Amino acid sequence: MNRATTRLTPGQLKRILSVVKNELSPRNCVISRNLHLSTITSTSSTFDQLYPKHDRFMERHIGPNETEKRAMLDFLNIENIQQLVGKTVPKDIQLERPLDLDQALGEHELLERLRQIASQNQVWRSYIGLGYYNTKTPPTILRNVFENPGWTTQYTPYQAELAQGRLECLLNYQTMICDMTGLFVANASLLDEATAAAEGMALCYRHNKRRKFLVDSKCHPQNIAVVATRASTLGITVESMDWGDMDFRGNDITGVLVQYPNTEGNVEDLTALVQDAHANGTLVVCAADLMSLSLLHPPGEFGVDIAVGTNQRFGIPMGYGGPNAGYMATGEKFTRLMPGRMVGLTRDSNGSAALRLALQTREQHIRRDKATSNICTAQALLANMSALYAIYHGADGLRHIANRIHNAALLLAEGVTRAGHDIKTDLFFDTFKFKPGSSQQEIRERAREKQINLRYYNDGHVGMSMDEGVEKQDINDLLYVVGSPLDADELAEALGPNPARSLHNSNFSRSSDFLQHPVFKRYQSETNIVRYMKELENKDLSLTHSMISLGSCTMKLNSTAEMMPCSWPEFSDLHPFIPEEQSRGYQKLFKELESDLCEITGYDRISFQPNSGAQGEYAGLRAIMSYLESLGQDQRKVCLIPSSAHGTNPASAQMAGMKIQPIKVDRHGAVDISHLKAMSEKYTDTLACLMITYPSTHGVFENNIREICGLIHHHGGQVYLDGANMNAQVGICRPGDYGSDVSHLNLHKTFCIPHGGGGPGMGPIGVKKHLTPFLPTHPVSPPYGVESQAFGVISAAPYGSSSILPISWSYIKMMGSHGLRHASEIAILNANYMSHRLKGYYRTLYTNDEGFVAHEFIIDCREFKKTANIEVVDIAKRLQDYGFHAPTMSFPVSGTLMVEPTESEDKEEIDRLCDALIAVRKEIQDIEEGKMDSNINPLKMSPHTQSSVLSSKWDRPYSRETAVYPAAFVHPQTKFWPSVGRIDDVYGDQNLFCVCPPDQRYNEQITEDVEKIKTRAASS
Amino acid sequence: MNRATTRLTPGQLKRILSVVKNELSPRNCVISRNLHLSTITSTSSTFDQLYPKHDRFMERHIGPNETEKRAMLDFLNIENIQQLVGKTVPKDIQLERPLDLDQALGEHELLERLRQIASQNQVWRSYIGLGYYNTKTPPTILRNVFENPGWTTQYTPYQAELAQGRLECLLNYQTMICDMTGLFVANASLLDEATAAAEGMALCYRHNKRRKFLVDSKCHPQNIAVVATRASTLGITVESMDWGDMDFRGNDITGVLVQYPNTEGNVEDLTALVQDAHANGTLVVCAADLMSLSLLHPPGEFGVDIAVGTNQRFGIPMGYGGPNAGYMATGEKFTRLMPGRMVGLTRDSNGSAALRLALQTREQHIRRDKATSNICTAQALLANMSALYAIYHGADGLRHIANRIHNAALLLAEGVTRAGHDIKTDLFFDTFKFKPGSSQQEIRERAREKQINLRYYNDGHVGMSMDEGVEKQDINDLLYVVGSPLDADELAEALGPNPARSLHNSNFSRSSDFLQHPVFKRYQSETNIVRYMKELENKDLSLTHSMISLGSCTMKLNSTAEMMPCSWPEFSDLHPFIPEEQSRGYQKLFKELESDLCEITGYDRISFQPNSGAQGEYAGLRAIMSYLESLGQDQRKVCLIPSSAHGTNPASAQMAGMKIQPIKVDRHGAVDISHLKAMSEKYTDTLACLMITYPSTHGVFENNIREICGLIHHHGGQVYLDGANMNAQVGICRPGDYGSDVSHLNLHKTFCIPHGGGGPGMGPIGVKKHLTPFLPTHPVSPPYGVESQAFGVISAAPYGSSSILPISWSYIKMMGSHGLRHASEIAILNANYMSHRLKGYYRTLYTNDEGFVAHEFIIDCREFKKTANIEVVDIAKRLQDYGFHAPTMSFPVSGTLMVEPTESEDKEEIDRLCDALIAVRKEIQDIEEGKMDSNINPLKMSPHTQSSVLSSKWDRPYSRETAVYPAAFVHPQTKFWPSVGRIDDVYGDQNLFCVCPPDQRYNEQITEDVEKIKTRAASS
Repeated sequence: MNRATTRLTPGQLKRILSVVKNELSPRNCVISRNLHLSTITSTSSTFDQLYPKHDRFMERHIGPNETEKRAMLDFLNIENIQQLVGKTVPKDIQLERPLDLDQALGEHELLERLRQIASQNQVWRSYIGLGYYNTKTPPTILRNVFENPGWTTQYTPYQAELAQGRLECLLNYQTMICDMTGLFVANASLLDEATAAAEGMALCYRHNKRRKFLVDSKCHPQNIAVVATRASTLGITVESMDWGDMDFRGNDITGVLVQYPNTEGNVEDLTALVQDAHANGTLVVCAADLMSLSLLHPPGEFGVDIAVGTNQRFGIPMGYGGPNAGYMATGEKFTRLMPGRMVGLTRDSNGSAALRLALQTREQHIRRDKATSNICTAQALLANMSALYAIYHGADGLRHIANRIHNAALLLAEGVTRAGHDIKTDLFFDTFKFKPGSSQQEIRERAREKQINLRYYNDGHVGMSMDEGVEKQDINDLLYVVGSPLDADELAEALGPNPARSLHNSNFSRSSDFLQHPVFKRYQSETNIVRYMKELENKDLSLTHSMISLGSCTMKLNSTAEMMPCSWPEFSDLHPFIPEEQSRGYQKLFKELESDLCEITGYDRISFQPNSGAQGEYAGLRAIMSYLESLGQDQRKVCLIPSSAHGTNPASAQMAGMKIQPIKVDRHGAVDISHLKAMSEKYTDTLACLMITYPSTHGVFENNIREICGLIHHHGGQVYLDGANMNAQVGICRPGDYGSDVSHLNLHKTFCIPHGGGGPGMGPIGVKKHLTPFLPTHPVSPPYGVESQAFGVISAAPYGSSSILPISWSYIKMMGSHGLRHASEIAILNANYMSHRLKGYYRTLYTNDEGFVAHEFIIDCREFKKTANIEVVDIAKRLQDYGFHAPTMSFPVSGTLMVEPTESEDKEEIDRLCDALIAVRKEIQDIEEGKMDSNINPLKMSPHTQSSVLSSKWDRPYSRETAVYPAAFVHPQTKFWPSVGRIDDVYGDQNLFCVCPPDQRYNEQITEDVEKIKTRAASS
Repeated sequence: MNRATTRLTPGQLKRILSVVKNELSPRNCVISRNLHLSTITSTSSTFDQLYPKHDRFMERHIGPNETEKRAMLDFLNIENIQQLVGKTVPKDIQLERPLDLDQALGEHELLERLRQIASQNQVWRSYIGLGYYNTKTPPTILRNVFENPGWTTQYTPYQAELAQGRLECLLNYQTMICDMTGLFVANASLLDEATAAAEGMALCYRHNKRRKFLVDSKCHPQNIAVVATRASTLGITVESMDWGDMDFRGNDITGVLVQYPNTEGNVEDLTALVQDAHANGTLVVCAADLMSLSLLHPPGEFGVDIAVGTNQRFGIPMGYGGPNAGYMATGEKFTRLMPGRMVGLTRDSNGSAALRLALQTREQHIRRDKATSNICTAQALLANMSALYAIYHGADGLRHIANRIHNAALLLAEGVTRAGHDIKTDLFFDTFKFKPGSSQQEIRERAREKQINLRYYNDGHVGMSMDEGVEKQDINDLLYVVGSPLDADELAEALGPNPARSLHNSNFSRSSDFLQHPVFKRYQSETNIVRYMKELENKDLSLTHSMISLGSCTMKLNSTAEMMPCSWPEFSDLHPFIPEEQSRGYQKLFKELESDLCEITGYDRISFQPNSGAQGEYAGLRAIMSYLESLGQDQRKVCLIPSSAHGTNPASAQMAGMKIQPIKVDRHGAVDISHLKAMSEKYTDTLACLMITYPSTHGVFENNIREICGLIHHHGGQVYLDGANMNAQVGICRPGDYGSDVSHLNLHKTFCIPHGGGGPGMGPIGVKKHLTPFLPTHPVSPPYGVESQAFGVISAAPYGSSSILPISWSYIKMMGSHGLRHASEIAILNANYMSHRLKGYYRTLYTNDEGFVAHEFIIDCREFKKTANIEVVDIAKRLQDYGFHAPTMSFPVSGTLMVEPTESEDKEEIDRLCDALIAVRKEIQDIEEGKMDSNINPLKMSPHTQSSVLSSKWDRPYSRETAVYPAAFVHPQTKFWPSVGRIDDVYGDQNLFCVCPPDQRYNEQITEDVEKIKTRAASS
């Protein structure tokens, strides 16, 4: 039976149901048994019978059709989905009612509804600056990357062999950042400029362990705020002052943050500051505008240690604040202190050059409760878009754009002066500040008339920032706003072709080359860049190829209808600091999404500010701390964390100023209640909270979660429930109901924001009422509903990555109450089906008492090391030969695989993965039985590349066909080829090289490059 | 030097130019020598110097940068581009001034300008019917197919081995058409419903040679008009009458055309008509609505011989008339009479199943001057979208949609009746007609108030047609318009769940299954269909992979900025028959495009109606004939056509009622002037025209074109200049200037509409003033400016495929006068560079006296048959192993390749193709020298698939590596794999099978299927 039966009209259904049960055909039988699944929505009127919904998105989102659901239930010997839920989810936490949400919308209804909301956003021209600028995303990049699931639905490139495309693009990004900043090494992106600045401060601290950090008062206010917020719980004191007043002689300053050009637009000579700082062991962090560096002397050339900033104006729409990529570049000696992900060169098993994430065991992974960074999600998609923007424009193109921007500012400044205002900025790139000759109010009114936003300082000054989007008419409109007596043409005549105030006439003019690598020169026709983007795309396995069963990462459908609105100008072209009256559409969408998420989670408020799960954790824990403080209980600092927790949990707790007490896990994978009790007792006076993931990272709904929450509350603590596994709960149970006080919600997992190959993500937090006064605020534009007791600021923008929130909003609106619950049910069904199908081949490590798992499960691969010399990594890499991305490896238990199929995968695909895993198990058995060599075998040699199997020489004890077509479903016609052999991580980390190598074709023997690497390493 | 030098400001340029020439560095040297190429645009004001254009699209469109241009000129020993043009284009036709066009716009300026134009189109709700209906393109299909260059930039799948993806999709389309119509075989699409009806008539004629055709008067008027137009010059008489009055007893009726349901909406029992017709040797052509066939007894089941129609309402936006795909399905016995392309199953060299265009040597190819069809371009992209629409919805989904549509009509009809109007349609699917109780005017006014368009009959009746897009609110608005006393809910209650008038209660209700093949059942979750679309895409080589140097087909960049507007609702959601006041944006765009094309060609008017080059030819020739007739010279029927002409030329002439006299071609490939003179003399009284391609299909600008045109005029004839090679002329010379009277312009070649894997195309015609009265008209909505002497109607829609015209408009606006000319120049440069690089390896068959070619050239491969047993097809297939689509094979000269690199390809890519061709030549040499076997060699065995090279068995006299990595630039990481081995055309044509085979996975051994095919063939 196919899915279409679910579209029977209720009338038809009634007729079918009137048939005597015993006589039901198998087809009808399924209907009757599954009625509660998806066939019934309450349609009562005759009209609804005659005219049912046009389309039901739920049926597009959920993979298995009714026949497949039935087959899986039968396989599990389960009568119906209700029964399965009953066997997996503790009864005492089950939600006994449907979620109270709007009726589900079809895709086209949704888009129409969203058009209405979008139309309430007003797209004025914003020349506010403050870190956000209009930019022009080249249409070909917009369409072929941002709007292409081949680029948006990849996972983070941990399985490097099938991710060489985006790794190459990220390496281009790192090279671009190094070139622009004049520094040695860059990471593969951070969350935004403000958090990058905070990470910069933390790096200073890691380097010299000093606990005082100075911030120039002319930094963007959100940078200052985020740095200050982070510092407060790291035990670092932050002081803000003019950099000219800074005194480093106490030798106690860890670092200093300056903005270049500063927030008012001034380009200042920071050489003396740097020298002074360095002379006293202080590091210099410089937040530098990437576009300005096309013309300006770059920070690396005047001695800055760490440059940070955003890639936003390199083709990433403002999006009312995000997403965009924060960047960080440093000098060579700080390479191994770098936070976040970094792409580096290494060799593969054939000795060929290959890329992978370097230094994978850093920071939150190794430091856990000593962490000074918890960054995990990055902004890969946005980093890649900006790299492609730089590639498409090249150095000369960027200079051209930057010159235009600069000249627009020069023209305007001249007009401002001639209008009788008083320019306060001496030397500028794109931004200046002036004291109106008349009044700020007058300028405001004329600007409003032209639908233009400027920066209005509290002291009556006005600021304006030019950008890539400015055309002649815009200049003339701005001249009208300031009351210039001359128009653009006249001012140009007056200034002449080489205006005196031009940066080119200063000693800040950049003399060094940048973007000289061939990759920045070869793709400047559209034909060429399209081919390059396609070449990179085709190297990468994404959801467009096969399922990516990443445990705890919920790689499910990211539908086109959800994604489309992100490209609409009404969402993408708003500056985050515009007056609220221009963003009514966003406000409406936020409020509706908040209300829906509250209903889904049982919380009372949501803050959208955190840009990732880890940021959410940090924000939630800070809110808890503030709450406890408000009760006068600031001695409560102990955070209990089960040992099975994700590494970010202790890292976030540490960063929030907590003391971590690990809690044991019993042999079923559940929290060891007696240990938890003992620790709660022990810390009853100092207990701040418990951080717990539910269902557990072991893939099980623990029975006593309600009891656990009660215990913590009993001891005066709060419960932080990690929302990573929310996909098993939506519609079934609500954290807010069974005792949790706060959770983050990974919108890029449960709520369909695509992973983008490693970001963007979104990690808003939901909190119970008592915590609502403590949600994050913002220094420029506080989010709606924020109260005075906010602990601080988490992100550069008030609502984090606003422009991707329509994705989650759309998902909820299209699924509706029934669809959302059903998604959770099928996620659970799929996982249990898989777990049971693999029985006899792999042991599922943890189940509940009834033998069932939640939406994911762990299979144990540890024994194979003994029986066959096979490690879990061999299985992971061998799966690539079968066309699959491996499940999560060795988390939370070393030597295991954690599998999460999600509800979007149908039985056919799941069966394929099961078949692959079973076939792999048989390959292991061949080794166990001595039929296959334990060193040279298809697993150890995997993944198999074209070069390895197409060589004339083949001396393996298995055939070429076995190597690359190991199962019937791996067709020559549709084979996905890993582009490099197995990655050598150690080699790369020992010979760290993180920019484009001299020859940008990586498929040559690495020998030469290695020599260069060694030379470079030796000279460092 | 890279392209960015072209962005120097004029100021910088001036400084560079002031440097003494001799001291120029190589970098500056290039600038000075190429200034006239692209560096100078007249920027005079200081403002323009300070603030030059943001982006120059020309630099994105044209592949080679300045360094590369210089290198190619140097290679040719040519000083500059002017000199090259001087050596290739006859002086006496060169345009001595720049084209008078608007200043070039940047991409973002363009999109803004187009937004303004689009906003002048008003998107009302249209329930007009007449063959055009609102539809909902599933977002995932819109984005992943229509908006994806991986689907839009392929060429027609003549090279089947690297086109299995879209061939599979077209086979799905054919299967869908067969299933829906209940007929045996369908082709892979025609241009629209009206031309499909005309093709149906021609098929009848081909079958029984009778010369009288009857058309039911209740067919859509445009169908009647196009049929009548076509018939008039085929020597067929058309009579329109009620089908009830038709009398076949004279045994002289070739066929009859009926519409089902008819244009007023009536569903009529045509069984008796069919029986009567058949009894008298008359065939029945039925134009059937595809969506209605989900519910209705299909034409094949009541004996219809030929079903035609459009796929428009299967997810193809109305687009103000097009593009959409016409369909044709027939009974088995007409298979070999089918016009157009048809995909069929065959086997490849490994004996595996494979797909390819079947019966390639039909119709215009073989019949030339006896043709009754000239169709060439199809609507592949739209056919594929509709197949995916059917796959995504499945049979039940389509029934669901059709039931909704039908029920909406039932509800409305009830409301109309209750409002006191008089329904004139007895049994209907979606459309009915009524006589207003009050007045048509009153209904018009209320409709206008709601922004609704209905069909207003001249006799005061009103018609309305329901569609997939109708929601409850629309029904209620329509009920308001007709003045129904009850609303939708109340009417539903009144009608009950099973309305008496429902089709389901008639004996028209469809009982047969359709879309039962697994392909229509497996992809109904979005995850699954995305993977399927990506799987198909990845089997096909497109412009996203490498250059496709198809001679005469101009496979150049189709930029995203040009494509984006096609998805805007203001362009895509307009019904073609709305009042003009709602389509002002389109009118403006048409007029601007017309004006620009006139300036480019030297013509005075453009008709946008023809949907393909062949249609343009036909329309142009018909205009000539009408013109001659108007002069009283209707004896002029002779059409002179050089023997080198494309097969469509004589086919079109034949169809236009002309007599073809071939003209010899001399050994230089030029028209044999003495023969031309002789023939002109001979036919001086009956000469109608000369059809000539310029530059010639031999790739040369003939010197005496002006003389030739003069000669024809001297003898009272007209000149039809085939615009296929316009890409060599734009900005350089104008057909209208040197003597041509009419040309078609392949907008899908020269003017950037993508080829879409075999359509859509557009073939508007340009004419000189004297021919303007004779341009095509339209029976429902005549195009602006059409005069009374129109010869007839060419397409179903007044402006053909309106919604893709923004592409060409955008191209012209962004390139500007200078850019357009420069594109032609570089097209010529690239071709000459290639031709010269291949010297010594391949002989360029034709050049002009100076040894230069135009924008394409022919290389001679005939000798290799003798020297090495190698045929041109071996070279073509071997190129696939190098990652290239072969150039045009054996046209216009058998045994040759015609190469057209276009201006969008850069030198690097061109060099790669040259390297491949040279390497192939060396492989041939190895055979010539006896180093390689003449039967088993890399050429004869090509293309090499994964299955062939990855088999353990390898007994060839060359290595696996040689087979699949024959050049250094063919990397394992980026290898494009042909998915099947060499196609066996003969086998497939002998065992014709044109629907999805029982097992839709084609990679199995074909044996079983072959048995089935044979059985089926035997039983036929």
